[in-house]
Amino acid sequence: MTDRYASFVQSGAGRALVKRLGLPDPPRLRRHTPGDPLVPGPVLLGASTGGRLAEPVGKALTAAGVELVDPAAATDATARFAALVYDASGITDSTGLRQLYDFFHPQARALLPSGRVIVLGTPPAECGSPREATAQRALEGLTRSIGKEFGRGVTAQLVYVTRDGDAGTPVSLESTLRFLLSGRSAYVSGQVIRVGAGTAAAPADWDRPLDGQVVLVTGAARGIGAALARVLARDGASVVALDIPAAGDELAAVANEIGGSAVQLDLTAPDAPTRLAEHLASRHGRVDVVVHNAGITRDKTLGRMDADRWDSVIDVNLSSQERINDVLLERGLIPAGGRIVSVSSIAGIAGNRGQTNYATSKAGVIGLVDSLSPVLRERGISLNAVAPGFIETRLTARIPLMIREAGRRMNSMAQGGLPVDVAETIGWLSWPASGAVSGNVVRVCGQSLLGA
Amino acid sequence: MTDRYASFVQSGAGRALVKRLGLPDPPRLRRHTPGDPLVPGPVLLGASTGGRLAEPVGKALTAAGVELVDPAAATDATARFAALVYDASGITDSTGLRQLYDFFHPQARALLPSGRVIVLGTPPAECGSPREATAQRALEGLTRSIGKEFGRGVTAQLVYVTRDGDAGTPVSLESTLRFLLSGRSAYVSGQVIRVGAGTAAAPADWDRPLDGQVVLVTGAARGIGAALARVLARDGASVVALDIPAAGDELAAVANEIGGSAVQLDLTAPDAPTRLAEHLASRHGRVDVVVHNAGITRDKTLGRMDADRWDSVIDVNLSSQERINDVLLERGLIPAGGRIVSVSSIAGIAGNRGQTNYATSKAGVIGLVDSLSPVLRERGISLNAVAPGFIETRLTARIPLMIREAGRRMNSMAQGGLPVDVAETIGWLSWPASGAVSGNVVRVCGQSLLGA
Repeated sequence: MTDRYASFVQSGAGRALVKRLGLPDPPRLRRHTPGDPLVPGPVLLGASTGGRLAEPVGKALTAAGVELVDPAAATDATARFAALVYDASGITDSTGLRQLYDFFHPQARALLPSGRVIVLGTPPAECGSPREATAQRALEGLTRSIGKEFGRGVTAQLVYVTRDGDAGTPVSLESTLRFLLSGRSAYVSGQVIRVGAGTAAAPADWDRPLDGQVVLVTGAARGIGAALARVLARDGASVVALDIPAAGDELAAVANEIGGSAVQLDLTAPDAPTRLAEHLASRHGRVDVVVHNAGITRDKTLGRMDADRWDSVIDVNLSSQERINDVLLERGLIPAGGRIVSVSSIAGIAGNRGQTNYATSKAGVIGLVDSLSPVLRERGISLNAVAPGFIETRLTARIPLMIREAGRRMNSMAQGGLPVDVAETIGWLSWPASGAVSGNVVRVCGQSLLGA
Repeated sequence: MTDRYASFVQSGAGRALVKRLGLPDPPRLRRHTPGDPLVPGPVLLGASTGGRLAEPVGKALTAAGVELVDPAAATDATARFAALVYDASGITDSTGLRQLYDFFHPQARALLPSGRVIVLGTPPAECGSPREATAQRALEGLTRSIGKEFGRGVTAQLVYVTRDGDAGTPVSLESTLRFLLSGRSAYVSGQVIRVGAGTAAAPADWDRPLDGQVVLVTGAARGIGAALARVLARDGASVVALDIPAAGDELAAVANEIGGSAVQLDLTAPDAPTRLAEHLASRHGRVDVVVHNAGITRDKTLGRMDADRWDSVIDVNLSSQERINDVLLERGLIPAGGRIVSVSSIAGIAGNRGQTNYATSKAGVIGLVDSLSPVLRERGISLNAVAPGFIETRLTARIPLMIREAGRRMNSMAQGGLPVDVAETIGWLSWPASGAVSGNVVRVCGQSLLGA
């Protein structure tokens, strides 16, 4: 669970050696602590001609207390920024892509460590012409390349903002901008995030964005689930921590630590969904946020895999989520404004040797998000997934050294992520303020090279 | 341009050493030679309960002279197959995914070298319920994992077949099945291919699927473009080979070799589209297939990149394609049944350090396919792209050894592809028989680990 190489590199002696030898240079990532300012410096906000998003983005950032700088005023070549934010929604043709170069080229070295690049555009499918859709789709090549190029913990994202309804307002954008600018998104890079229409409610206190929310976390006894329970409780939620009876002691410890409640339940039991629904109804009357984090691996190549390994992985990682969603939704226990977040995996995106069962289940989670989120949107409920990459846990600590090192370094951060990085991302998707964010699969992978 | 390691491994002495040391083991891939039988052995064809595709697939394969075996009859554990083909369209729920295990587990070691796995399903967006869409989307995790697991040159693909109109008929499926089963798709693996509605015409001779077609190939003087001109001419096309005047001698040599014509033209010149249109109109009266293969790289990190590097790459790789398409379409030079194929790149999917310009242009090509293909479908014209991974050319031969070796080996084939592999894939997308295939971006990358 410790990355000794990163610790060494981040020491003074290590730095010098690593630079001399050209070795991977994992930076110390800026992470979130309650009370932190949103960004450690000013933000440069630029816009393409005719862009519609710079104004609401500017309002949202000003409301968040960010110092904004206009590119026309950024004449001091020594100025350093916490973020470069660019409204590309005005680009309607590939020849207009030149405006990206004009904004980013002079500022390519102006970012502070763990700086942020955010490009905003219009979803290609909503564009008025193939030329515009082509140019808007091209933005993805830019942001993914910047993410791989800038280094020093800098992240780069593309945010597509719908033109529909009341979308693109400061309040619908603010949760996503705050997440991406803050240390909460330390290990999220190279992502395409879609902000749609949907009701978003700003919290009274952005340090407690889950105040008063009842949140169910499955698989909460250890690893990512335990980190998740802690982050969500820190952010104000009443956490219902669930795990299998065999993990009861660890589960109780987590629940006690955060002042939450513990539920011991095997989610694959036929009566699990109704028992869970009855528990939530009787104790809380509702559940505002459901986080399907419970998951297992039973790795074998397909020829050597027994049927039980196949069945159990599909059932725990996918089918049980479907059954639970159905019962909770049928009984009206997830109110309007509710959130469902599932945990997928890079293996579900890219496939993996020895994981036909796991990758199938995690690809299914992506299908669940794609297909169910439009249905739930009509009920005011959002549905998203996160797809973790290499995260430092007890499981990854058991991987042989060389393979572990490859997994750790093959991403834009040159290090593994921490469970808290996945937890912060799920947190953002859970906030009442994130109502305009649905149907996304967000990788928490430091922009891993692996993909589809 | 030669992979000496692969040659060594494929020799007797090399094989033994490589096995002992656990080194990468690049197999000799089965490639296409005219007159070859489609597959070097029988094909096992299975179906999920209620699947709608096994019947048309069976008819198409029988028409193609393939010997089909039914799983119920496949009791001989020593039997070896050229392909495992499975109709998964009957799977309507995640619990039904077990049928995949039941088909593939017993046969996981039954494939011949360079064998084929093809799973067919229904596009998730067309499914009748979220449960069905989830299960159909899960298929992607299976096929991508099989591609990474089976080795020995085996490829694995997922083919989504629309339910619309007269789709899913033997004739609409046959070109894609033939491509995937044959050696033409040697370096295509881990792909998701969509077969939609659309008119497809079977050729008189499947060894000359482009007979009588007028095909324009840009960037035809060398590398992938020259291989492309040769493959398309071999398959019966009249090739119009285009390149810049500075490459005139090489271009003339290619054109002479294949009995095609040569056009020297700088595609970025303002009058290039009209000059090209006039040439095609006067010489041929039409152009059935346009292959936008011309492309350049001008690599630099964004901070060190001058504006000319940005502009020239965007213009050659993206904007000039848009201008040419517009003029050829406006003048009606691409008839119904026409095909446009663009060349994207893995860099356009995943982004790349030092290639913000190139990746932006190649991501734009994907946007072009996504946005323009529905418009062209109404005119009976298909539009697709290929995205090459590591292909052995003069350019890759100049990459430093260690980086070149990493690029070569980090894919399911453990070797780089050849220009002919890209050419064969573009060929398939160009056939009159492939009218049901539009809007696809097909990677030719041996299932490279790199992705988004």
